[in-house]
Amino acid sequence: MTLRIFRPSEQTIAPMAKTGISPTREEDYPNWYQQIVRAAELAENSPVRGCMVIKPWGYGIWENMQGILDKMFKDTGHENAYFPLFIPKSFLEKEAEHVEGFAKECAVVTHHRLEPGPDGGLVPAGKLEEPLIVRPTSETIIGHMFAKWIGSYRDLPLKINQWCNVVRWEMRVRLFLRTAEFLWQEGHTAHATEEEALEETRLMLDVYAKFAEDYMAMPVIRGEKTAGERFPGADMTLTIEAMMQDRKALQSGTSHFLGQNFAKAQEIKFQNKEGGESFAWTTSWGVSTRLIGAMIMTHSDDDGLVLPPRIAPKHVVIMPVIRKDEERDTVMEYCQSLKDEISAVMYDGSPVKVFIDDSDKRGGEKKWHHIKRGVPIRIEAGPRDIESNSIFVGRRDQPKSSGVGRNEFVAGLASTLQEIQDSLFQRALKLRTENTQSFDSFEKFKAFFTPKNEKKPEVHGGFAECFFVDCPETDEKLKPLKVTPRCIPFPGQGLTEGVEEGKCIFTGKPTKVRGIFGKSY
Amino acid sequence: MTLRIFRPSEQTIAPMAKTGISPTREEDYPNWYQQIVRAAELAENSPVRGCMVIKPWGYGIWENMQGILDKMFKDTGHENAYFPLFIPKSFLEKEAEHVEGFAKECAVVTHHRLEPGPDGGLVPAGKLEEPLIVRPTSETIIGHMFAKWIGSYRDLPLKINQWCNVVRWEMRVRLFLRTAEFLWQEGHTAHATEEEALEETRLMLDVYAKFAEDYMAMPVIRGEKTAGERFPGADMTLTIEAMMQDRKALQSGTSHFLGQNFAKAQEIKFQNKEGGESFAWTTSWGVSTRLIGAMIMTHSDDDGLVLPPRIAPKHVVIMPVIRKDEERDTVMEYCQSLKDEISAVMYDGSPVKVFIDDSDKRGGEKKWHHIKRGVPIRIEAGPRDIESNSIFVGRRDQPKSSGVGRNEFVAGLASTLQEIQDSLFQRALKLRTENTQSFDSFEKFKAFFTPKNEKKPEVHGGFAECFFVDCPETDEKLKPLKVTPRCIPFPGQGLTEGVEEGKCIFTGKPTKVRGIFGKSY
Repeated sequence: MTLRIFRPSEQTIAPMAKTGISPTREEDYPNWYQQIVRAAELAENSPVRGCMVIKPWGYGIWENMQGILDKMFKDTGHENAYFPLFIPKSFLEKEAEHVEGFAKECAVVTHHRLEPGPDGGLVPAGKLEEPLIVRPTSETIIGHMFAKWIGSYRDLPLKINQWCNVVRWEMRVRLFLRTAEFLWQEGHTAHATEEEALEETRLMLDVYAKFAEDYMAMPVIRGEKTAGERFPGADMTLTIEAMMQDRKALQSGTSHFLGQNFAKAQEIKFQNKEGGESFAWTTSWGVSTRLIGAMIMTHSDDDGLVLPPRIAPKHVVIMPVIRKDEERDTVMEYCQSLKDEISAVMYDGSPVKVFIDDSDKRGGEKKWHHIKRGVPIRIEAGPRDIESNSIFVGRRDQPKSSGVGRNEFVAGLASTLQEIQDSLFQRALKLRTENTQSFDSFEKFKAFFTPKNEKKPEVHGGFAECFFVDCPETDEKLKPLKVTPRCIPFPGQGLTEGVEEGKCIFTGKPTKVRGIFGKSY
Repeated sequence: MTLRIFRPSEQTIAPMAKTGISPTREEDYPNWYQQIVRAAELAENSPVRGCMVIKPWGYGIWENMQGILDKMFKDTGHENAYFPLFIPKSFLEKEAEHVEGFAKECAVVTHHRLEPGPDGGLVPAGKLEEPLIVRPTSETIIGHMFAKWIGSYRDLPLKINQWCNVVRWEMRVRLFLRTAEFLWQEGHTAHATEEEALEETRLMLDVYAKFAEDYMAMPVIRGEKTAGERFPGADMTLTIEAMMQDRKALQSGTSHFLGQNFAKAQEIKFQNKEGGESFAWTTSWGVSTRLIGAMIMTHSDDDGLVLPPRIAPKHVVIMPVIRKDEERDTVMEYCQSLKDEISAVMYDGSPVKVFIDDSDKRGGEKKWHHIKRGVPIRIEAGPRDIESNSIFVGRRDQPKSSGVGRNEFVAGLASTLQEIQDSLFQRALKLRTENTQSFDSFEKFKAFFTPKNEKKPEVHGGFAECFFVDCPETDEKLKPLKVTPRCIPFPGQGLTEGVEEGKCIFTGKPTKVRGIFGKSY
C-alpha cells in the first residue's frame, strides 16, 4: 500500500514545477492548509483571540452549504427558529455531564455596561445577579422552551432547527477547524417514543452523509461513537467521519440521541394518549463552518483551493484577453454574450454562476488568482479565439487548459461541471480506500500509526479497522499512539463485511464489534 | 380630521362583535400588540432577561425579509462576510462619540471558563486581560479589518454586509421592538471619495424604502435625522419613518454617512491615484427584526396578525371540511389536487406557498387559528363544494368569506395576492395621510400632540410637519410634549412642497428647513 498525497496538477500547470501554494502538502501539511485559506481569501484571524473573520469567498461557500442543508432540513419536516445567545449559568448546571463538558471553555458575561474607571478608561459595571454564558450549544435553553411548548402528545414531534453562532473558548486556533466562535446549525427535536427519536437521530445523520457525499464530494463513513467520544449528556452519538489528505480523520457532523436525560433535567413532559404523563425523548444534531475546513483538506492541491461545483460560489470565470486597446470592445462584447449564454445553462437546479474578471491584473496573475480560489472552470477569450468562435478552457481538477469550440463548450457545460464534481469524489474515495486497512494484531496496528519519518510525524497510516471491545483497557493502549476510535461503522461501511465475530486486538477478548480508528483533528 | 384606528373587519368576521384579539387596539394598544405576537405565535420572552425566542412563524417572516433584502444588497454590488461576535473594549473606545453611545448598554465578557466555587456551584474563572464587549454594532471591528484590507484606491470601493445577532442591554422589553439581543444586517462600505460614500448612503436608504413599501406594504417617509438623532459617530444619518396604527412613528431603517470619522480613528487609509495617502470615506446601514414589529403594527387588526403576501411564510391554507369518516378520502383527494394546482401558480417570482391543515381542530377553532396568524387566503372545501367544483374562500384583508368556482379562483390567484398586497399598502397610506398635518403655530402643534383623553395618553395627533431650526431651543420646547423630530423629509416627501421658506414654529426664526415630528417607539 502506498502512502502518498495527491499531487495531480502542480507539475503541469505551473511552469518549472513551481506550485501555487508554498509549502506543498508533502513539505508541511499544516502550513499548507493555512496558506490555502490565505491564498483563497477564505478567512483570517481577527484581533479577538480565537475568533475568525470569514471573508466573502469563504462566506459564499457557507451560504451555499446553508442553502442546501436548510432545504434538506425543511424537506424532512423541520422549522427554523431562534433562541437567545445567552444561557443562565444555572441552566447549564442542570445536566451534570453537559456542564462538565462545556464549563472549561465558555465565555462568561458578568456585567451589562461600561463606566469611567479611576484611571480614565472604561471598566465593567452593572454586575449581573447571575452570570450568563455565551451559548456553546443550546440544549438547555431550547429544552426549557420545549418544556413550555409541549403539553400533550398532539404537540409532538416538535422539530426545530437554529442557524446561529456559538462560542467554545479555544486558544489554539486553526481557521474553520478550531475557533472560539463558529457558525453552525443545531437541530433539536422532541418525540413521544424512543423509537421515533432514534429514527430521527438516524435520519439526520443520513442527511449529513448525503450532503457530504453528494454536495461536498467528500466520502464519509457513517457510524456510532464509542462511549468516551459521545456528546456530553447523550445516550448515543452518531457521526460521519471523513479522511483528509494527510490521512487524519475529521468528524464532520454528529447526530445525538439524548434519551430522556435532558427531558428529565428540564421537565419536558407531555400528557400521553393514555392520559398519563411521560417524559419526551429528545435529539440534537449539528454541523458547522468546520465543514469548510473539511472541504479544503479533502480537495485542495498544491496550487490552491479546489471547489466541488455544487458548493462553489461561482462556477465559471471568463478572463478577456486584451492586448491592444482597439481590441477591447470586440473582446468584451464576445465575453459578455458568452456570459449571458452560460447564465442560461442550468446546473443542479439553478443557472450556472459565471462572472467576467476584467480587472487590470496581468494574464498569469489573474489566472493564478482564480486557480488559488478554486473556481471550477476558467475561460480565456481573446481576438484569435473570437475569430474561430472558440475559447480556451481550464478545469480546476485537471492540469491542462485547451481550446474548445464555444458552442460545444456551452452545450456540454452542465455535464462538465458534474464530471468535475464526480471526479473530486472519486479521487477522495480512492485516497481513503488506499489508506484504509483491516488489522488482526495490535503490533501491525501500532506500526500502521507509527510515523516512518520522525521529521514528518503527521505521515502515518490512515484509517484502521479491527474488532475491539470499548473499554478502559482499549483506551489505555490507544493513548500513546494518539489514535482514537472514530466510530463503530454502520453495516456496509467497513472493510470486513460478513465477518460476524473476532478478537479484540487490544484486549484479546472475543467481540462482535468492529471499529474504525484514526488520528484526528 | 378624524383620529381613528382602523377596524375594518372585526364587526363582521367575528359573530356578536367578538374579536379574535382582546383587548382591541382602541381598548389598549400596547397590550393589543403583545396579544397579537402571542396569538400569532411569532415570539415570546425567554428566561434570559431582555432576550426573545423567535418562534417558527415569526422566524419564517424574518427568513423572507432576509431573502429579499439579501438579493437587493447583492444586486447593488455588496458581498456578505462574517466578523467576530466580540469586540475588545479598547476598540470601542477609539471613536469617542461611538463609545459614548453604546457604553451604557453593553454585555461585557470578563471570564472564559467556569470552575467549582466555594459553595459547590460554578463561578466565573479565567479572567480576561481585556474585557470583551458583545457587539452592539460592528463599525470598530469591521473598520479594523478594512484598514488591513485596503491598501490602494484599487481596493475601493469595499462593500460588505453582515447578517448577525447584536446585543444592546435593555431591561424594558417589547418583543421585536426593543430587546437586548436582536437579529439584523449591518452594511459597511469604504470609498475613495466623499461623493461616492454619500451616494452609497442614499442608495441603501432607497433600498430600504423600496423594501418597506413594495414588500412590507408599509409607506415610509424618507429623510435625514437631525443632529441630536444621528448615529453615534456619524456625520449624517438618513432614515425611513413609518406611522403605526397608534399614529406613533417607528424608525424602520437607517443609513449612515460616517465621513472620515471612523477612518481616522481606525487608520483606514489608501494610496490614492496621485500616489499620496488619503483616509477612506465610510458608510454603515442596518435594519433589524424590529421590522417585524413595524409590520405587525402597520397591518394587524383586532382579529390578529395581517401579513402582506410578499412577506408571508405561507400564502394559502386549505382546510378540508370532513363531517363523516366516509367523506375523508374524497375531500382529502380534492384538497391535495387543489394544493398541487395552487403550487403551480407563480406569485412574485416563486410558486405560491400553500399548505393543508388537516389537524383535528374544530372548524371554527381552525379558521381562527389561521386568521390570527395572518395567512392571506383561507380555503375551506367540503363535500358540497366538491360537487360544484367550488371552494369557500376568505381573504385576510376582507371581512367576508364567499364561495368561488375552483378554476376561477386558481386562475385569479396571483392577482388576488397582489390585490391584497396593494390594499394593505393603500390602507396604511390612508391612515398616514389622514393623520398627518402641517402646522404654522406652536400652539396648534402642541394641541395636536396633547391626548384628548387622559386615560388614553397614547391617542394623539400623528405626524406634524412644520418649518423649524434644529437647535437646543427647539429641543427644549419639544421635550415636555414627548415629541421628537423624526426627520427632515427629502424633496417630495412632505405636505408643503413648493413652499421654500417659513418661520420656525419653536423659535420664530426664519428657516428653509421643514421637519416631520411625532411621538415614537
